[in-house]
Amino acid sequence: MNYTTLQDAFFKLRSNRLFELFVVSIIIFSALVIGAKTYNIPPEVLVLIGWLDTGITLFFLLEISIRFIGEPEKKRFFHNAWNVFDTLIVVVSLIPIEDSEMALIGRLIRIFRVLRMVSIIPELRLLLNSLIKALPQLGYVILLMFIIFYIYAAVGASFFGKINEVLWGDISIAMLTLFRVMTFEDWTDVMYETMAVYPFSWIFYLTFIFLTTFAFLNMVIGIVVSVMEGEHAQEEKEKALEDGTPTIESLHKEIIELKELIKNKS
Amino acid sequence: MNYTTLQDAFFKLRSNRLFELFVVSIIIFSALVIGAKTYNIPPEVLVLIGWLDTGITLFFLLEISIRFIGEPEKKRFFHNAWNVFDTLIVVVSLIPIEDSEMALIGRLIRIFRVLRMVSIIPELRLLLNSLIKALPQLGYVILLMFIIFYIYAAVGASFFGKINEVLWGDISIAMLTLFRVMTFEDWTDVMYETMAVYPFSWIFYLTFIFLTTFAFLNMVIGIVVSVMEGEHAQEEKEKALEDGTPTIESLHKEIIELKELIKNKS
Amino acid sequence: MNYTTLQDAFFKLRSNRLFELFVVSIIIFSALVIGAKTYNIPPEVLVLIGWLDTGITLFFLLEISIRFIGEPEKKRFFHNAWNVFDTLIVVVSLIPIEDSEMALIGRLIRIFRVLRMVSIIPELRLLLNSLIKALPQLGYVILLMFIIFYIYAAVGASFFGKINEVLWGDISIAMLTLFRVMTFEDWTDVMYETMAVYPFSWIFYLTFIFLTTFAFLNMVIGIVVSVMEGEHAQEEKEKALEDGTPTIESLHKEIIELKELIKNKS
Amino acid sequence: MNYTTLQDAFFKLRSNRLFELFVVSIIIFSALVIGAKTYNIPPEVLVLIGWLDTGITLFFLLEISIRFIGEPEKKRFFHNAWNVFDTLIVVVSLIPIEDSEMALIGRLIRIFRVLRMVSIIPELRLLLNSLIKALPQLGYVILLMFIIFYIYAAVGASFFGKINEVLWGDISIAMLTLFRVMTFEDWTDVMYETMAVYPFSWIFYLTFIFLTTFAFLNMVIGIVVSVMEGEHAQEEKEKALEDGTPTIESLHKEIIELKELIKNKS
Repeated sequence: MNYTTLQDAFFKLRSNRLFELFVVSIIIFSALVIGAKTYNIPPEVLVLIGWLDTGITLFFLLEISIRFIGEPEKKRFFHNAWNVFDTLIVVVSLIPIEDSEMALIGRLIRIFRVLRMVSIIPELRLLLNSLIKALPQLGYVILLMFIIFYIYAAVGASFFGKINEVLWGDISIAMLTLFRVMTFEDWTDVMYETMAVYPFSWIFYLTFIFLTTFAFLNMVIGIVVSVMEGEHAQEEKEKALEDGTPTIESLHKEIIELKELIKNKS
Repeated sequence: MNYTTLQDAFFKLRSNRLFELFVVSIIIFSALVIGAKTYNIPPEVLVLIGWLDTGITLFFLLEISIRFIGEPEKKRFFHNAWNVFDTLIVVVSLIPIEDSEMALIGRLIRIFRVLRMVSIIPELRLLLNSLIKALPQLGYVILLMFIIFYIYAAVGASFFGKINEVLWGDISIAMLTLFRVMTFEDWTDVMYETMAVYPFSWIFYLTFIFLTTFAFLNMVIGIVVSVMEGEHAQEEKEKALEDGTPTIESLHKEIIELKELIKNKS
Repeated sequence: MNYTTLQDAFFKLRSNRLFELFVVSIIIFSALVIGAKTYNIPPEVLVLIGWLDTGITLFFLLEISIRFIGEPEKKRFFHNAWNVFDTLIVVVSLIPIEDSEMALIGRLIRIFRVLRMVSIIPELRLLLNSLIKALPQLGYVILLMFIIFYIYAAVGASFFGKINEVLWGDISIAMLTLFRVMTFEDWTDVMYETMAVYPFSWIFYLTFIFLTTFAFLNMVIGIVVSVMEGEHAQEEKEKALEDGTPTIESLHKEIIELKELIKNKS
Repeated sequence: MNYTTLQDAFFKLRSNRLFELFVVSIIIFSALVIGAKTYNIPPEVLVLIGWLDTGITLFFLLEISIRFIGEPEKKRFFHNAWNVFDTLIVVVSLIPIEDSEMALIGRLIRIFRVLRMVSIIPELRLLLNSLIKALPQLGYVILLMFIIFYIYAAVGASFFGKINEVLWGDISIAMLTLFRVMTFEDWTDVMYETMAVYPFSWIFYLTFIFLTTFAFLNMVIGIVVSVMEGEHAQEEKEKALEDGTPTIESLHKEIIELKELIKNKS
């Protein structure tokens, strides 16, 4: 049995729906194991879970190997960001971590295995891609929002720093407090405290709330409009592909044909 | 009086608007009786309410019988999910429940009678159907959101489990706590508690809030776009039906006719 | 000077922009007087405000009389809901209220004078009309939401009534508590209290939040779609009016003309 | 070296992308310096920061001078609101402030330097302009909302003023409390307090929440619709510019040409 036949066999296996379903169920099972570990469980079950963990790690190693061997062009394999992500998760979880300090990080990596769910189900991959694609369009709104936050945090830390160290101690703490105000979480408690010293500090909070709400709204509307346009453009394309229903473009062609007909006739 | 005449009579009765109005008013009355029982009422009134309850149950039994007998094809009756729902509610409320433990469940069933309002008013039925229809489109967004919740809950339960058992004890409690954070309900109290041990745990909360807000927004926009498209498609259909206003399609036909005319002329 | 000339003069006055501006400024002034009364003011100023109050009342009486006399058809005057509202406010504020109990109601009526701002500025009247027009479209969604609230309140009052009388005492208190849960106001405090007795009562709160959020979203989208459609329809109308820019309809007419031309030629 | 050559050189410098990048990095650096000052820093570093501050002030003075000298028409320079804003910030920060009272205001001005980020990055300037442009369209909705707030605050201050001075003392405090109720911030605490005296005061809060939510929704939808329309209009314009893809207008022209052709033929 030479390498090419193996590669072909693995390429077929990898595209097999049953194999995919099996991998998905192993991922779900590993997620359940992770969930189970958060409950108080007797030590004997803990040992079992340890064995299951090792088994899942080995299965994932096997699966990623099958994918890699099944790939006709080895270079293209790592061009796909999802493959890189999968390989990283698997490789890192192979490192034996015994130290109690590092054990938490080991746990974290095992939890991120659940994200493999996204990398294996095409619809979720599509959804996440569209979410990521929407981000750069919003880049400048996010920058503007950050500037608003930074200015208000600087003002807050300068003026209210001595009133409450915990909320306005330095600019990074002040930004966290402002995020809290933006989510309306007990924001009046924060305001009443500073109003006792600066009676007009309500202006600070109200202008901040108005500015951030307005900027946030703009962001949401930005997404809606860009999504709508994308949908619209795709619809037009689809219409152009199916020849049955006429479009303005096809009418244009027909009128030109008509013109030629009349010219040639006489 | 044979069965067919009875069936015809009941079929007519069932479609009668006055009968429908009468049933609706009985449902409203039964809702009021249910509401009245939550107040502190003297025992003699309680006895009266008991009698009213029995009366309503009997009326509903009568009504569902009329509907069933009035149905020309008996099999089709249970193909309608609303009929099945109505019958279930009526049949279950017939079971005599004396036990005090079960009395609460008996009460619950009587409360669900109010839902018959939805099954009897066509507009509400339509509205609920459209709500249910919108769900599968959002399936993958909901799955993605569940994965986000699961991963964060696993991280939360692993790291914060020892800080606060009540909030992060196990993965299911942690998911409830995260839902609380998502609704911004005293989420800073939750955060400040864990920040005392892990000073950088604000990253955990902020990324969670950003991810879920973003996914939620995407869900909302998904509904808006799909509703808009549905409306648009229906409009186009309606336009095609009324021959008066011309569409691109009708222009296309007219140009073709013109072509034929010119060809035939010469 | 006979009645007709007076009516004409008043009709002109009523449509005069300067007169309108003067009335608006009196309304703003009366709003400021109302606001001033909420501050701790010395008794001599209070006397002054009392005189101002009487002055404003008399001015409003005069103004409404001018409007009424200026109206060519007396019957049509009360067909306008805003005129009825204005007259009511003015007439009721004429009733002398000395009793301390009734004084509060007298105050309330004076506050409602500010609403005359809406009745006098055409743009605000338009805005309020469009808000009121949007309501019936949402009628069934509101009914559905009320049914959801009623059922959950009945369940809540039956099961949690003994846990906390203040929050779940009877069905109307329970509905208020549910509204609080819907606004996410300390809803976890409400939930944790009932979870101590019924550990699975989180299902009650989570399903309630999902249902009401979903119904609310549907309501918002309903408004958006209906507003968009209204805008679209108006645009089409405007396009049809201006003959300059061609529409599908005008193309249709031109093609028909073309057909006639070809037919007549040969 | 005469003035015109200097002006030309400065005009070129000002449009240079590298120079722009350098100014942006200085602004970012000044923002970081402002942020650093909010931390507890040793006095020697404080001295260094003082020197940096002076350096940044001088650089900004230099930069604004270059911009001004580089401007061919001096009058037009101050027609641009952003130039006026930049000059103001720079000039005011030149005033030596030694007094400890005034030091806070000096600090405030240095913080506002971060806003120069918006004035120098064209995309942010565009974004802010579009935000400001959206405001007047919403003018009447904001006025309506203010009237709602004013009336409810007047009612609240009149009736609840004696129950809680801190929340309902006078009309301006009452408006702040109502804004708090609108953000759902512990609004039930406010309500339960007044319900103890006026059991039906929940009507006050619920109608207020419904009215403001409804008006807010209307505002959001207003922005969405106007943004959508703007996008649509621009798209149409762009389509008209590129001659390649046919529009209804171009079809119209072609049909007219066809008509001429037929007329001339015979």
